[in-house]
Amino acid sequence: MQFDSLDDIRAFCRDLPGGDSRAADAATLRQQALTKPPGSLGRLEELAIWLARWQGREIPRLERVTIAVFAGNHGVAGRGVSAYPQAVTEQMVANFAGGGAAINQIARLAAAELVTVPIDLQRPTRDFTIAAAMDVDEFLSALDIGYRMVPPDADLLAVGEMGIANTTTAAMLCAALLGGGAARWAGRGTGVDDAGLSRKCAVIDAALGFHRAVLGDPLGVAAALGGRELAAIAGAVLAARRHRIPVLLDGFVATAAMVPLARLGVGILDHCRAGHVSAESGHRALLHELGLDPLLDLQMRLGEASGAGVAILLLRAALACHAGMATFSQAGVSNATP
Amino acid sequence: MQFDSLDDIRAFCRDLPGGDSRAADAATLRQQALTKPPGSLGRLEELAIWLARWQGREIPRLERVTIAVFAGNHGVAGRGVSAYPQAVTEQMVANFAGGGAAINQIARLAAAELVTVPIDLQRPTRDFTIAAAMDVDEFLSALDIGYRMVPPDADLLAVGEMGIANTTTAAMLCAALLGGGAARWAGRGTGVDDAGLSRKCAVIDAALGFHRAVLGDPLGVAAALGGRELAAIAGAVLAARRHRIPVLLDGFVATAAMVPLARLGVGILDHCRAGHVSAESGHRALLHELGLDPLLDLQMRLGEASGAGVAILLLRAALACHAGMATFSQAGVSNATP
Repeated sequence: MQFDSLDDIRAFCRDLPGGDSRAADAATLRQQALTKPPGSLGRLEELAIWLARWQGREIPRLERVTIAVFAGNHGVAGRGVSAYPQAVTEQMVANFAGGGAAINQIARLAAAELVTVPIDLQRPTRDFTIAAAMDVDEFLSALDIGYRMVPPDADLLAVGEMGIANTTTAAMLCAALLGGGAARWAGRGTGVDDAGLSRKCAVIDAALGFHRAVLGDPLGVAAALGGRELAAIAGAVLAARRHRIPVLLDGFVATAAMVPLARLGVGILDHCRAGHVSAESGHRALLHELGLDPLLDLQMRLGEASGAGVAILLLRAALACHAGMATFSQAGVSNATP
Repeated sequence: MQFDSLDDIRAFCRDLPGGDSRAADAATLRQQALTKPPGSLGRLEELAIWLARWQGREIPRLERVTIAVFAGNHGVAGRGVSAYPQAVTEQMVANFAGGGAAINQIARLAAAELVTVPIDLQRPTRDFTIAAAMDVDEFLSALDIGYRMVPPDADLLAVGEMGIANTTTAAMLCAALLGGGAARWAGRGTGVDDAGLSRKCAVIDAALGFHRAVLGDPLGVAAALGGRELAAIAGAVLAARRHRIPVLLDGFVATAAMVPLARLGVGILDHCRAGHVSAESGHRALLHELGLDPLLDLQMRLGEASGAGVAILLLRAALACHAGMATFSQAGVSNATP
């Protein structure tokens, strides 16, 4: 395993691989020479420079783009917190394999390879209202699955998830590590009614009490109150950092999986961008807490990396302009009057 | 010419071709059957249904997508309201032809045909602080150029512009027809400094006084205070309505070109969506006035249909999901618990 203990992860996050400032500076200069008023491509400019920084190339590339969708099951699903039965997790994994889900269509459009990683679906985490969801070994094992699936030569990684009840788990991590109680973080997920939302809040607040002793330890929280697919996303994001691969995060659950990491070091998410802000009620506040400015706001709330997948299209637009535009001198266009 | 008089335009806008409710209803039912929680694709669902309504097809298509960029020159450019010399309009048209501009890269990525339509660049409109920018015949002629360039078999039209000083013209139309004076609508365009912005405001407020008599007549305003490329955009949007082609509007200038039309009838922009909200300061308020909710907010402010061009990618994502996803019954996925 890449990390044999929680301390190994902590050490990694204290001494993070950095980006390539020289490539970023070269990309910035290139942007200034292209035939447009300075800054007029807005975030498309920033994205091109961000890709350059992490890929270490003045002109980045998006040839190998990987979308990873991790799936897991949750003991807390037995508490009536989702509109769908737990069997849907496995059914949707089969739908991914058959090409029938939204992310299949989006991945094809974005010219990305889609990798679906179901993790122990027959072995849900334990119900965290009455036990630790995972012990440390289970957590490290799930994290390792995510770490190992990242192709070291990927140009971009987009991460997402599938797991009935996992917006409850995500809200749980936020409540445990960011404060504000269940009411701040619990939302309607796939569409629970008022009674379901009340159950979600009750479950989260109960677990905050039960796990009081672990709340000061971000990785302890990730194990005791998290989920396998969230741990795997964290592992994939760490692997991407090791290989200096830029990352697009999907929605509320994928972002919540970053909270334990964000608590371990400064700048841990510098190689990440938020693909979108979802319609799940806690996502905007969560992005704000992590200093992430989402690329899209389309009121999506599907998960399965669908928002991050659409955001790949924006990176392709950013790169197309960065790589393909003429400079003022090449095109014989007059620059701004001084 | 399609419209021989301003009255012809007024008559068209009083009796607009409508969309196809049956196709829209069928598309709505289809969305509800696809393997996702209802509504979870957010605006991607709404966009698929909107395309269905205007194309009259339960499953719309995006085979022939046309991006039209109209270019014009403005007498008011002589008033020091732009950071760039007027020659840049023609230089950028050459850059479009040579494939070096941002919109060339975006159009290729979006699999759209790019049509650039320069209109009388050697004959700028008159300086509207001291004269009518265009007489009625000049306005109708420019509008007709836009009307005639729309391929009747296009599946989607995206409209944008190029024209040094035309954010001043756009702000002028807004101030004349929506109120609030120059300060509400004038922005920094390609990047004027404080002195340039002051000149912009002074020019607009002066013209509001000079043209007081025409301010109650939206099409009279479009002629006396508008620009040829803005008139052509209006013509293209009317032609699209005639042929029931959905339209993506670009930024502040393209949206401002809609204001005279919006004043002529209810629902004139129902076949249009705002591709993005730009960084130009008046655009958000303008979209709000017109009831348009932008698809993207990337702080772009380049014009040349670049924002609308990027938004085409979102429509492709919407259509890919709408057309390609499996239904719950096809995929054997359990639907929500009642």
